[in-house]
Parts: sequence; C-alpha cells; structure tokens
Amino acid sequence: MNQVTQMPSSCTSAVSAPQPAFPLDRWWVAGFAWELGDKPLARTLLGRPMVLFRRPDGRVAALEDRCCHKELPLSCGTLEDRGLRCGYHGMLFDSEGACIEIPGQDRIPAKACVRAYPLRERDKILWVWVGSTPDSLPTEEPPPYPWHADARYRFGGDSFHYNTPYQLIHDNLLDLSHLGYVHLKTIGGNPSVHMNAKLEVKQQGDVVSVIRHMPASAPPPTYVAAWPFKGLIDRWQEVEFHVSHLLIWTGAMDAGTGNIDDPLREGFHLRGFHGITPETESTCHYFWTMATNPHPDKPDVTQVVVDQTAATFHEDKTVIEAQWNNQRRFPDRSQVDIHVDVGPNRARRVIDRLLKTA
Amino acid sequence: MNQVTQMPSSCTSAVSAPQPAFPLDRWWVAGFAWELGDKPLARTLLGRPMVLFRRPDGRVAALEDRCCHKELPLSCGTLEDRGLRCGYHGMLFDSEGACIEIPGQDRIPAKACVRAYPLRERDKILWVWVGSTPDSLPTEEPPPYPWHADARYRFGGDSFHYNTPYQLIHDNLLDLSHLGYVHLKTIGGNPSVHMNAKLEVKQQGDVVSVIRHMPASAPPPTYVAAWPFKGLIDRWQEVEFHVSHLLIWTGAMDAGTGNIDDPLREGFHLRGFHGITPETESTCHYFWTMATNPHPDKPDVTQVVVDQTAATFHEDKTVIEAQWNNQRRFPDRSQVDIHVDVGPNRARRVIDRLLKTA
Amino acid sequence: MNQVTQMPSSCTSAVSAPQPAFPLDRWWVAGFAWELGDKPLARTLLGRPMVLFRRPDGRVAALEDRCCHKELPLSCGTLEDRGLRCGYHGMLFDSEGACIEIPGQDRIPAKACVRAYPLRERDKILWVWVGSTPDSLPTEEPPPYPWHADARYRFGGDSFHYNTPYQLIHDNLLDLSHLGYVHLKTIGGNPSVHMNAKLEVKQQGDVVSVIRHMPASAPPPTYVAAWPFKGLIDRWQEVEFHVSHLLIWTGAMDAGTGNIDDPLREGFHLRGFHGITPETESTCHYFWTMATNPHPDKPDVTQVVVDQTAATFHEDKTVIEAQWNNQRRFPDRSQVDIHVDVGPNRARRVIDRLLKTA
Repeated sequence: MNQVTQMPSSCTSAVSAPQPAFPLDRWWVAGFAWELGDKPLARTLLGRPMVLFRRPDGRVAALEDRCCHKELPLSCGTLEDRGLRCGYHGMLFDSEGACIEIPGQDRIPAKACVRAYPLRERDKILWVWVGSTPDSLPTEEPPPYPWHADARYRFGGDSFHYNTPYQLIHDNLLDLSHLGYVHLKTIGGNPSVHMNAKLEVKQQGDVVSVIRHMPASAPPPTYVAAWPFKGLIDRWQEVEFHVSHLLIWTGAMDAGTGNIDDPLREGFHLRGFHGITPETESTCHYFWTMATNPHPDKPDVTQVVVDQTAATFHEDKTVIEAQWNNQRRFPDRSQVDIHVDVGPNRARRVIDRLLKTA
Repeated sequence: MNQVTQMPSSCTSAVSAPQPAFPLDRWWVAGFAWELGDKPLARTLLGRPMVLFRRPDGRVAALEDRCCHKELPLSCGTLEDRGLRCGYHGMLFDSEGACIEIPGQDRIPAKACVRAYPLRERDKILWVWVGSTPDSLPTEEPPPYPWHADARYRFGGDSFHYNTPYQLIHDNLLDLSHLGYVHLKTIGGNPSVHMNAKLEVKQQGDVVSVIRHMPASAPPPTYVAAWPFKGLIDRWQEVEFHVSHLLIWTGAMDAGTGNIDDPLREGFHLRGFHGITPETESTCHYFWTMATNPHPDKPDVTQVVVDQTAATFHEDKTVIEAQWNNQRRFPDRSQVDIHVDVGPNRARRVIDRLLKTA
Repeated sequence: MNQVTQMPSSCTSAVSAPQPAFPLDRWWVAGFAWELGDKPLARTLLGRPMVLFRRPDGRVAALEDRCCHKELPLSCGTLEDRGLRCGYHGMLFDSEGACIEIPGQDRIPAKACVRAYPLRERDKILWVWVGSTPDSLPTEEPPPYPWHADARYRFGGDSFHYNTPYQLIHDNLLDLSHLGYVHLKTIGGNPSVHMNAKLEVKQQGDVVSVIRHMPASAPPPTYVAAWPFKGLIDRWQEVEFHVSHLLIWTGAMDAGTGNIDDPLREGFHLRGFHGITPETESTCHYFWTMATNPHPDKPDVTQVVVDQTAATFHEDKTVIEAQWNNQRRFPDRSQVDIHVDVGPNRARRVIDRLLKTA
C-alpha cells in the first residue's frame, strides 16, 4: 500500500474549523472511477473539502482543496503529468500534496504543501480515508465489490447529492416498508404487502441485516417490466448495513418455484451498492449502482432498471429532504417508534457507539 | 362547538422552539374556504407549521404539520375518508390528530398523535385558534362576514405572502394617505388631496377606526373605470382595525348628491376584508377579498376592481418589503412621526398592551 | 467647498450597527459621473447604505438611504428640482439631508432629516467622504484624474460588484504575475515570462509601487489585436497603490526601440483607473476605466481593449470569489508566501497601520 509521504504537521493536521462527529477511521466512498477524467473534481467528504483527480499514469489522488499560497481551490487548477497546478499563480502539487514547483522561485519552502488523503480505486469504486487523527492510517484495503465485474450482471449508477444528514438515508434503506407509499409507481406495489412482510433483523458486529420476505405477492411495475413473471411472485429484500455503505439484494421468483433461503437462488434480482458519505453534518453524497441479471428475452432491462431506480431515489430524496426540513422546524421533539424501526435503530446504535468510543 | 379530543400532553403542548410573541387567544384567519380541495394545504400560521384539509364529508381541520413517527410533513400525505395518511409509512390521522391506523401494526401507542388546532369555516373564511396555553380554547365562534353572501355584492380575493412582519401591513392600511404616492395609477389620485383629507381616529376597546373624507375631489382611475361618475366625487375611506383583521369601506358619490355620514349611503363602494396573520416574526399572510356593488351598466366591474386591487396590493408589497429590508439594515434607529401616524400608532399600542397582559 | 449643513446629531451620527473597520478619513470612489441620471441610485459604500443622485441643476449629492419617517429607502423615491421625494408618504429631502416638505403637515420637526455625505464629481469620477467621526470632514478636494480628459486617450469602464473583501482585489492587482495563469487568452501570454519578470517594489508614505519589466517578450493576444507590433516587445507594468484606488500603467514598445525608464515613452499603452471601495466587510465595488492611445491604423482599438479588459476582470472575479469562498471554508489557516507577495503585503501593512492609528 502506498503511504502518504511524511509531511510537515501543517499539512497533516485536521482542518481548523470544528468538525461534526463522523466515525472516521475507515474507508468511505468518495465516488466512482468514471468520475475522474481530464479535470480535477471538487468534492467535500466528511467535512473535508477535497480535490480528487486521476494523473495521466492512471493513479488517483485526493488533496485538500486549497492552495497553501492564496487559498484558491486546487480544483480550479489544471492536471499535468506530475500533478495538479494551481490556477492562480501556477504552483504545482504532486499526488502526495508536496509542492514541486513555484514558478519564478527556486526555493520551495518546507511549508509549501497540502494535506493528502489516501484514495483507492477498487472495482470501479473510489474509497477515501480521513482518519480521526494524523496517526490513523489505513490498515487494510477497502472492501471488494465483485458484482461490478461479474459477467452475469450489467450495472449502472449515479452520484446524488442530498440536503439531509446521511443517517436519514440509512433509515430509509433499512426500512423498505416505505415502498408501498413512496414508490407506488415503480418498485412499490401493494402497501399492505410491504407493511405486513415477515421481518427479520440480525446483527453481527457493526453489520446490521434486515431481511423481508413477501411470498406469493403481486409483482410491482418495475418487476413486470423487467422479467416475464407468470403471476404471483416470491419476493425478497435483504439489506446489509455497513457503516459506510449498504448492500441490498432484492429479487423475486415465480411463486413456489424456488427456495427463498437458498443463497444461490436465481430469478430476477438486483444487487444494489449504496455508498452514503457525509458531506457536512446536514448534507451527504449518495453513490449508488444497481446491477441486474438481464433476462435473455429482455436484453435492455438494465437501462430500464437503472432509470427506474434513479426515479425511485428521486422520490426518496423528495421525501427525506422534506422530512429533514421538517425536523429542523421542530427541533428537540421526540419521535414515536413503530414496528419498522427495528433495523434503522440498530444501525443508529452502531454509529452512536463508534462515536462514543472514538 | 366541537371540542378537541383530550390528547396526551405531548400532542397539545406548544412547539418546542421559542415562539415570537403574538396575541394568540383569538381567532386568526387561516385562509379561504376555496383553498381546501382534494389535497392537504401546508401553511405556517402564528409560528406553527400546520396542515389544513377538508375531509370528504366537508368538515375542515388543522393539524400540526409533522407526523409523530419520522416527522415527514403530513401535508405530503393524502386525504382519505377518515383523515390524512402520511406519505412515508402510511400512518393515518383523524381530524382531531389521533393516529387511527399504523399499517402492519395492531397496537397504536397512546403517544401516536399530533396536535390539532380548532379550525372554523364561516362565510367563506377559515379561522384558526392557537391559544397561548393548552387551556386556551375558543369561547365563541369566529366573527361573521356578511358581505361575502350579500346578493348586492360580488367579490373576489387572494392569499398573498409578505416577507415582512404583519404589523407593517396594519401601518399601511391604517394610513391610506400613501395612496397618492404608492398607487398613483389605480386608486391614488392627487397626492395633496390624500395628505390633506380630514382625518378622524376613534377607538373602542381593541378596535381602532380611521375615517377620512375627501369631499369634491377628482375620481382616481379605478373609480372612473368602475362607475359612471359625472365629475367630482365625495369620497370616503373608513378603516376598522381589529387585531386579526381589518374591515375597510371605501367609496364615493357624485359630489353633493348624498350624506357622507349616512351609514346606508349608496354610490360606488368597496367592502374590503383584510385578514393579516403572522407566519413568523418577520413574515406574514395577507388574506383579502374585495366586494363591490356593480353598476347596472358595468356588470363586469367586479373583476376590474379585483384585478386593480391585486395590482395595488402588489405595489404595497413592494414598498413594505423594501421598508422592512431597510429597517433591518438600520437596526435600533428611531423613526420620526408625522400627522398620518395617529391611527397606526393606536393599533400598535393595542397589540403592545395585549402582549404585556398575556 | 460646500459644507454639510449643521444637522441634529441624530442625522450626523454613524449608523447604529457595528461597522467593519475601514480607513474612513479619505475620499473613496462612489461611482462614475455617468451613473447618475434621472433616477436615484442605491449603493452601499463603506458599510453605509446611501442614495446617490444628481439634481436637475447638475449638482450631485449622497444621503443615507433611509427616510426618517417609516424607513423606506429614499432610493425608492423620485427626483425633483428641490431634492428627493420619498415614495411612501412624499416627504421631500434636499441635498443636505434636511426635510423641506411633509405633505399635509405644516410644521417640520427638527429631527426630520437624514445624514448627508460629502460627494464630489471630478474628472468623471464620484468621490464620497464618510469620515470616522462626525467631525471628520474633507480638508482637500479629491485627486484629479487627468487621463479621462486627455485628448490623446479614449477610455471606457464599468462598475463591478465583487462578493469578496476589497483587499483581495488589491492583492490581485499588485501582483500581476497571475496574468500567465488567469488571463492566458487576453493579456496573459507566456506564464514563465510573467513569473520571472524583474520586479521592483517601492513605497512612499501610503503609496506602494510595483514595477515589472519584461524586455523582449512575446506580445499577448490583446496587444497583438490593438497595435501593429513587429515582433517581440519591451513590456512594462507599473502599479501604483493608493488606499482607495490603484493607478496601473501598462504597455509595450517594439523590443529595443525606446527607453523603458523614460516616463514620456510612447508605444501602445493603457492607463487603468481602479477604484476599489468596500461595500461591506466581505463585499466590494470595483469601479474601473481603461484609457488607451489608439493607433492611427486601428481607430476602434479602444472598444476592443475595454471589452477585453472587462473579460479579464470577469476572469479575476471568478478566481477571487472562489478564493474568498475557500478562505471561508478554511478559517484561521495561515498562507505560505512566495516571491510575488512583496507588493500586496506592503499594501496590507499600510491599511493595517491606518486602522491601528485611527
């Protein structure tokens, strides 16, 4: 693993402003591989304004988005073979944040550097490490995500920006009972089927799983469009929460044609990757892909599924941002829990515990 | 009078955030009957975010605009026979704020409720009661407004939103001397006529009246368009301030053809209803109607009058919002009073006294 | 010099809100002569909201932009022979801020006045004096600017608004090394020429001069468009910083054809006037003109030069506003100085000293 070059403390210290509390000592999703082209990308992650870029040799890097001279964002600069050149006075920084050229000046002061953040590209996903202290460095590689390269699947995705705290998206994804009210026109279907599905919540360490089975239920519009079901379906939703991302496996078989507990079961299904990374205390990024197994008779189903997923997530965004705006209008009010909150509450307790022990 | 069902204190308590001071123990205008259709209406009144709706049986209701589960605004939900269903997880609330269904869960916790506000519909006007304490409940019905149903009149109106504190609109309406400068093109006319009109200010309890007579004056453009005056007119403006609304009777006769002190006098005239309800400390709603007696030769005069009134109020809105923005640029500066301020100052003293004794 | 009429202290006192620190005891640029037409002009200068206007007799005036009655901005009013009439109730104010008419009221209270600010028009530039105390009044006229009336020159200009503190524009203009990175397409040219130019910084009292000579360099696009150079050029940039404005003389001769230290040297050149006046602590006005000596073969060069200057300043505005936004994202972080900062740092020390001794 490539280590960050040793820097003066001015370049490794945390930003000076007080930071919201996030569980920082882990890999978080910074975006997708295809977002880094011939221009640097400005993105604030975990309260840190960063510039992400890919050098001509293909390696990716993340720096604090601030030239140490006059503080222009480095994302206003230009990419060169050796690194990123500032757009104001042309200072050139390498991937480790060291200034390697000051036009018109021979000596480069030791302080002329910016903080670099470890950034990895794995299975088309970019992962960044911030760390709660300068000593907190990655001890292992970010997790693999095999479905992006699995020949049986096709996938698409997008990067969304939400004006809500990131945990409200956890709540939403860990409680798919809302599908019947929020997503009637796409993946929803009959509300009472969703609200009465058999629900199982499990936890292993910091991983919370919510499993819902809806046997012999009517297929919702997206499913009908994507697969030639014969009638009722045995439908499943398996949500696996990790602190920095969720894996959601949903799908269905013609009712009675398979074992819904078989991990190798076939039928129409979707593998969702959901990287949810705080931008600030009250805003976040939602990096998602949806992979599906196209039916031989419906080769174009992937685009249909991705388009409908995007539409679905826009419905969620509308609801969650309305929810957040309303929570701010009613500060310090308590909520009444109902049966669907078991999974979301577990995830919140995981993060609460990580913050307390940090 | 239908009472609000007894609720747990969590549902009757005031919102938790500190509230600006309004004289709450009275009916305030919440809107007009025709605004409640097949969708719930979100409106913040007196600092309280509310959802207003009409049930299929015709009855109207107002609830706190916040589902007690995950805090989505209830105004994002849908109307049903029995009440309002939240758009996130489908909890159903009746007109009294009680949750009467939690999809997928049999037991409804006692805390599952939202605050209801007494709402009345009378003579096409919606009136809401907030109350300064949970014990403050209406002791009488809201006032009638006969002109909306009087066969001699036709009326129209609208709901405006102002980015100004509500009392600046009182100031404006209790001092119609501004007509000569702000409304030159519509109801204004010669400024000096307005500034030199005979002015009488009276007070009875919390009701302040400002009466201005402009005998033998030139008719302004709106009057000429609306009525076949023969030449100069005897014109009157009678403004009656109540804490929650103003009644303004303006009109004119051909000069010398009637007694301007006769309460039954005819001629062209306008009955204005002006419900001015704080939204927040610095914003408000302005609910107005204008009723007029169409001249037989000018049956379409009502629409002309309403359109010109709307144009006039937009002129006022521009001036008052500019005034308010400027007051914020110059905080804590004192104003120099002139002769026209007698009426507005009386009204301000009424509200000051109500706030002190509250 | 016309003195401000003696006013009650309520009309000469500073605005009540705490003011940011500016060196006030001097003339600052308020705009250009041609900006004052038949309507009053609202402009906040040095933290003071003002209305600027020209009376029908041609004289210019500046008043606090707030009617002393109900606080409508006077800039919403109308110009008359005797002064400025408020657009709400018609109070009329003269150029010295005295109320000289209250419609409908004979007596004018002594307090009915607004603060007036000395305003001068000289060589097409408007200069305003705020003063750090009520006793601070101009002791001399604002400086002349002869190039606006010099028959050898043609000029054009504009008033820009920047969402940045004013000193960031000083930094920018006192360090023209940025031309090679920010203004590649217009006045820039080869970056290394700029970064390696011979630099001389001088100071005389509060005036800081930065002189850069670039002998035998390639002419940038704007120069080529404006003048028939034969090849390489001897190019100069002479920047003279005064606290309230900068004078910038730039130009070039065919290489080797003249003495670059001769103050009467000819060749293509530009005389820039840059009035930079704080609006608030974090925003400012940038009033600029660019005068040039058109080549006989290129009579239309002035418009080309002014258009390209405007384009250049828009490039600067983009960079400087991005810089400022970023500085706010990284509060309290120190900057690393490089060789080009000598001039800007001198200017900052001048202003720091003026604020300390104020």
